Parts: sequence; C-alpha cells; structure tokens
Amino acid sequence: MADEPVKVVYHLTEGLDQASRAMSNIRNHLRAEPDTKIVVVANGDGIKFLLTGATERSGRPFDGAVAALASQGVDFRVCSNTLIAHDVPVSRVLPGVRLVTSGVAEVARLQAREGFVYLRP
Amino acid sequence: MADEPVKVVYHLTEGLDQASRAMSNIRNHLRAEPDTKIVVVANGDGIKFLLTGATERSGRPFDGAVAALASQGVDFRVCSNTLIAHDVPVSRVLPGVRLVTSGVAEVARLQAREGFVYLRP
Amino acid sequence: MADEPVKVVYHLTEGLDQASRAMSNIRNHLRAEPDTKIVVVANGDGIKFLLTGATERSGRPFDGAVAALASQGVDFRVCSNTLIAHDVPVSRVLPGVRLVTSGVAEVARLQAREGFVYLRP
Repeated sequence: MADEPVKVVYHLTEGLDQASRAMSNIRNHLRAEPDTKIVVVANGDGIKFLLTGATERSGRPFDGAVAALASQGVDFRVCSNTLIAHDVPVSRVLPGVRLVTSGVAEVARLQAREGFVYLRP
Repeated sequence: MADEPVKVVYHLTEGLDQASRAMSNIRNHLRAEPDTKIVVVANGDGIKFLLTGATERSGRPFDGAVAALASQGVDFRVCSNTLIAHDVPVSRVLPGVRLVTSGVAEVARLQAREGFVYLRP
Repeated sequence: MADEPVKVVYHLTEGLDQASRAMSNIRNHLRAEPDTKIVVVANGDGIKFLLTGATERSGRPFDGAVAALASQGVDFRVCSNTLIAHDVPVSRVLPGVRLVTSGVAEVARLQAREGFVYLRP
C-alpha cells in the first residue's frame, strides 16, 4: 500500500482565480512528490479555464499551462452537465480534456472506487 | 466493496449562493448515479438555506428543493453550535432536518467511521 | 479501527476570515470530540494567520488562539513554497508552527498515508 503512488483529485468549481492557484499548487505538488497521480475535475464556474481563449490575470493563456501539466501526466476532466447548463459547445473545450457526465459524481467516484484523496485549491 | 453504494458528504459553510449550487450539484449527482447516498452537513453561514423563509437568488424558497431532495433520500444535518452562536431558534430549522452537536465533527465522523467521501460544492 | 481517534486535516488557503472561522470550528470540534487529532495545513493566503502580528477582524491577535489550540494537541503546518513565493522570512512564522515543503503535498500525504480525513473550513 505505502508504495503505491498517492492519487489526488483537485476539485475546481470557482473560476479563473481558483484555477490559477490550482495550476501553481499542482506544479508545486509534482515538484515535491513527482510520483503523485493528479486528476483535476472541474464543474460549474470551475470549467472556465479549460475553454479556448481563457487567460490568467496576467493575460497569459491557460492552454499552455494545461498542456504542460497534461504532458506530466495530469488528467483534466470537465463536467458535461455544466457545458449544457452554461450553453458551452464541446468545441470550446481544450484538446486533451476528457468529458465526464457529472463532475461531482466523478469526484465522489474517484475517492470511493479508485482510492483518490480530495483537495480543493 | 465495489458494489456498495458510494456515500458522499456535501459540506456547506458559505451561504445561500453555495447552497444554490449544492442543490443543483446534488440533483445532477443523483441523476448520474441514483444509488449514491448523500448527506449534507451545514455549519456557519452554510445553515442559512435550511431556515424557514430562505430563498434562492431567483426568489424561489429553498424549502421545496430541500423537501424534494429529502424525498429522494438525501439527509440534511445542521450544526447546533452554529444555531446557538448565531442565536437562531430551533423552530426556524426546516422540518426533517436533523440537528447534530458539531457540524465539523459530523463531517469528520462520517468520513472516518462511516466510509463517506468528501465534497465541497 | 473504530477505537482509534479520528484524524482530520483542516486545509486553509483563503486568508484571515477563513482562519477565524477555522479557529472557531476547531474549538467546537474538540469540545464535541476531544480525542480528535487535528492537523492544520496552510498554503497560499491561508498562511497569513500564522505570521507574527496577524489579527482577527476584532483586532485580537491570532497568536494566542494558535498557542491555545497547540497546547490542546493541534498541529499547525505551513507551506515553505508559499513563504518563498510570498517573500516571507521564516522568522515571521509563529513559534511552534512546522514548515513543510509543499502544503498541498502534505494535505494529500496525510490522507493517503496517515489515515486523515479532509475538511475545508
């Protein structure tokens, strides 16, 4: 058990400021513990940073940071219910981001069925 | 294990906007995974939506949404310490909502003793 | 298992208002369940209340509340990455507070390796 990698679900629901903090948190997390498996699940306003054209406060687009973390093994999953409720076409979701039916159900499932622990940045 | 229903504690502490999001999240959650056992624990400003007369931004009262989810098996629990600290009489708590001594202790107990996973909407 | 004390990580990331709520939550938690082991992990703006001179809205300094909870067995841990990023010298951290390399990695480790449950006040 103790040798298995730690698995963490980062739950994002608030918007771009929380997403900026999360990107920074995840970079620090992987620098401290490179073997950690991280899945980011976004629902509600948490999905905004995963749409084309989204930028950090500094003006820097999110897509580069997302692609860089994805290349380090971070998975990004977005709630389809939110896309529908917010009238966002799937074509606006960044490449490589996986759709899940319900973000909250996914957060629960990862913990209850796949041994993930929870973290809200 | 894998066949037992997933059990999730939704932890509400912020106020009416978080509660609105939570009602919507829980409806989506149960639509995606109808067998999920959901307990909502509210403390601090999180208790406001469970008091008589509380309304969503749209003006719609919360009591109908709470009763509808309760009829689907969702449990609502409110922190007695908060009621005392905020000087709220128990008579203002919606019918069917259970009092617990400490909301935070209940959130911890459900996870540590009853196999619930955590979710903060 | 059921006889071991419940272990809870309180995750603080927001700032002084969240920290005030957390101090009150933890006091209530320990009053309801005195055997609970509580570790507070602070990163980002969550570290502010653990620096010398920080005060609650009422003007009361945080150091007394932190020392009182520490004397009841609560551990406080602060993220070194945040100290560096916010340019805060270690000398400003309250006595008795432990430094950890990465606050988020610590929150994950406590859950995955030491049986803690999560709570965000």
